[in-house]
Amino acid sequence: MTKKSKEGLTVKKEENFSKWFNQILDKAELIDLRLNMKGFMVFRPWAAMILENMFKLYESELQKKGHKPTFMPSVIPEENLKKESSHIKGFTPEVFWLKEIGKEKLALRPTSETLYTPMFKLWVRSHRDLPMKLYQRGSVFRFDTKATRPLIRTREIIWIEGHDAFATKKEAEAQVQEDIDTTEKIMHQKFGIPFLAMKRPQWDKFPGAEYTVGSDAFMPDGRLIQQPSTHLMGQKFSKVFDARFKNEKGEGEYLWTTAYGPAMSRILASIISTHGDSKGLIMPFCISPVQVIIIPVFNKKNKDKILKETEKVKKKIDSFKLKTEIDTGEKRPGEKYNYWELKGIPFRIEIGEREIKNKKVTLFTRDIGKKESLSIKNLSKIKELGKKLDARLKEKAEKFMKGKIVNCRTKQEIKTAIKNKKIAKVNFCSIDKKGEKCAEIIEKEIGAEIRGILANKKEKATGNCVICNKPAKEVVYIGKSY
Amino acid sequence: MTKKSKEGLTVKKEENFSKWFNQILDKAELIDLRLNMKGFMVFRPWAAMILENMFKLYESELQKKGHKPTFMPSVIPEENLKKESSHIKGFTPEVFWLKEIGKEKLALRPTSETLYTPMFKLWVRSHRDLPMKLYQRGSVFRFDTKATRPLIRTREIIWIEGHDAFATKKEAEAQVQEDIDTTEKIMHQKFGIPFLAMKRPQWDKFPGAEYTVGSDAFMPDGRLIQQPSTHLMGQKFSKVFDARFKNEKGEGEYLWTTAYGPAMSRILASIISTHGDSKGLIMPFCISPVQVIIIPVFNKKNKDKILKETEKVKKKIDSFKLKTEIDTGEKRPGEKYNYWELKGIPFRIEIGEREIKNKKVTLFTRDIGKKESLSIKNLSKIKELGKKLDARLKEKAEKFMKGKIVNCRTKQEIKTAIKNKKIAKVNFCSIDKKGEKCAEIIEKEIGAEIRGILANKKEKATGNCVICNKPAKEVVYIGKSY
Repeated sequence: MTKKSKEGLTVKKEENFSKWFNQILDKAELIDLRLNMKGFMVFRPWAAMILENMFKLYESELQKKGHKPTFMPSVIPEENLKKESSHIKGFTPEVFWLKEIGKEKLALRPTSETLYTPMFKLWVRSHRDLPMKLYQRGSVFRFDTKATRPLIRTREIIWIEGHDAFATKKEAEAQVQEDIDTTEKIMHQKFGIPFLAMKRPQWDKFPGAEYTVGSDAFMPDGRLIQQPSTHLMGQKFSKVFDARFKNEKGEGEYLWTTAYGPAMSRILASIISTHGDSKGLIMPFCISPVQVIIIPVFNKKNKDKILKETEKVKKKIDSFKLKTEIDTGEKRPGEKYNYWELKGIPFRIEIGEREIKNKKVTLFTRDIGKKESLSIKNLSKIKELGKKLDARLKEKAEKFMKGKIVNCRTKQEIKTAIKNKKIAKVNFCSIDKKGEKCAEIIEKEIGAEIRGILANKKEKATGNCVICNKPAKEVVYIGKSY
Repeated sequence: MTKKSKEGLTVKKEENFSKWFNQILDKAELIDLRLNMKGFMVFRPWAAMILENMFKLYESELQKKGHKPTFMPSVIPEENLKKESSHIKGFTPEVFWLKEIGKEKLALRPTSETLYTPMFKLWVRSHRDLPMKLYQRGSVFRFDTKATRPLIRTREIIWIEGHDAFATKKEAEAQVQEDIDTTEKIMHQKFGIPFLAMKRPQWDKFPGAEYTVGSDAFMPDGRLIQQPSTHLMGQKFSKVFDARFKNEKGEGEYLWTTAYGPAMSRILASIISTHGDSKGLIMPFCISPVQVIIIPVFNKKNKDKILKETEKVKKKIDSFKLKTEIDTGEKRPGEKYNYWELKGIPFRIEIGEREIKNKKVTLFTRDIGKKESLSIKNLSKIKELGKKLDARLKEKAEKFMKGKIVNCRTKQEIKTAIKNKKIAKVNFCSIDKKGEKCAEIIEKEIGAEIRGILANKKEKATGNCVICNKPAKEVVYIGKSY
């Protein structure tokens, strides 16, 4: 055991995840809750810089796939919000309304279908304007009546929302799959967060959608967390907003629309929870605001010489376009090591008398805690090592996820799986309306939810439903969630 | 006169600026107002992409100067907002309040001093933590009771706000000058918008500030528009929020704070107005979402050959890291020319049979309307030409500004200057409280305002005040403003 400074974490992730999570948000200087507004957070520079890097990767993938940015108003006229009945029924309890000034009744946007659809009506004239793929980065606001949790369940969500319009249902359904692919390419491949792409049961879809696919990621405490979801809105919104286009024959048809919502603030919760350890954060190399921290190890006599050398090493690393900083502060090297490990910096370089003599640096790798010697000539190797670090984080998370899924054939087996903080994989009657009764039994007796069926891979059900014993149509995943 | 298509502008900037401005927002597909919420806008992809590029340049300059990003809540507790009396007095009529849910009384942030100062109190312990320089990009909300105007006077403003804390007044005042330098480096040097850095009269400062410096840029109709402003808050906010730090002697002192607010949506109004012409936008090369548009000129027979060649040219230009697109659409070349000129693309490349034969392209430069031949070997020259285009836009704007400032020695001369849509430069008694009476006379009799004195250059007053005839302490600038 290393000696713990009062700045470090005092609790282990495995022992008390919830306490560990709150502690790391505070001690790694990510989130401040002391403004005392329930569900609203202050993102400190370290968290904000991580979010900015996450946005960059996400937006660049969306743009590569043909999406264009927009900025919509943060408010929505009541009239728009109330147009689609199941939408407003679903969102009504969660809406923040503004006090009326004059005649206008405005709501803070809880999501922006009712802003984008009237724009599609105006911007799309003919099939030649399709597909139209738009997005915005910004905040949405939901008055969540449940207990709030920083990053995970909040009243202001910092996210990207994609809104797309198509000529046919087929294209809209292909977009849902493309959105899953975007989650895969960025959240899984880059940030190292694997997930199950779950087509949700009909009773658990987005208010106003035909169907919803949610990405369920795994938290260390055995619960699932819904990450980016994508919705096939079908023609529901286009019909109430009369958003039509002229097809090739010149006839008017309603648009097919989809929506995609990766919440950066929520994904950050998964990154922190999945990769972090008892010493603090572990940042993926590809989004760490500082990728290499350089610590000079000096005494009064050799201070100048060593600082000069660290400057040289920094310049060299800068030239590889890596983000690097020198910690020239007054603390002892050991304290600096702890501080930057808490912040999750992928690599630390130590430079002292011995290193200079040997024309080497000491390189510390955060996730495996390994120290090694690296020749100054070979500093460019860090780029490669960074990719390897990201691959290790991803593989570790995948292994964790695999170990969490258990095939269950009886109600008792499901009970045991959930008790052991696992996810039960089960043959089930149906995720349409008629399966809801069986789902209610599971919720009541086991305290867990049907999360859905795989949306990007067909899994064949065998035998009968574990609850009602009717022939099973689906293979569903059952777990507890945030 | 060129023949005008129905898509093009039908009014000249010089003839009816206001109509021209509204038309360009619509026809260049920048802003849509058809959601019918007074003061709230939809930014279409072309405007959003320009804004993103503006944000990038601005944020990178702020970070270079040691600012770190944050994300603050979009809402403020009533208690915080009301703490500084002149602040809340100034902002009260403009605040959007949320309907209360439970006990919390929340306002949409009109600006974020009352969020940052309580954080400084928590984050700054000793002089070693100073300076602390933070910023965020996001929206602020002001219920402006005057007539709204797209981009210029709106109820939701898309901006950056910088909030900094210092140990001494001297450092805080140096920050005000640094902020002026940031406006100079980005808004003037990059976007080509020159400005007067005006230290505002005491009666026209930010509510709660010791003093305010506003950057006044020049609109084609002779009016001034306030662009980024920077405020010396002094210790006003730190005192009401009890935000103290320990100085080197270990004694508690109140922080000195500043705030800086470049509004991207408003700066975009200046970019459009200053550079645009009767054919549409003219985008500075450094922020144009597309820097080079390639138009293939083909018939049925040579279509494939020519499209192949344009692909080659695009790849070559891509390799210089320039943003380029090929317009492969169905319209005739002439229609495409008009469309992309309306969008303000700096350079157009035309490639047809003749160009291929000569191993050249035809290069059209938007601001000067010049066509020239450019050898395919020399395509990299476009980078240099882009810098020259930006320099031309800047020089043209500077010349326009210079021609607008007129030295005036009598009230009559001021009257004439204002009537001629100029800015009067005048010897004036004082911009402290005691000068307010003279300012009121100017406002009442001439309908113009004292905008302030130069904040970054000392100008020596001579003689007496044009109004009260007392000895003049200041050289002020008088004009009409948005």
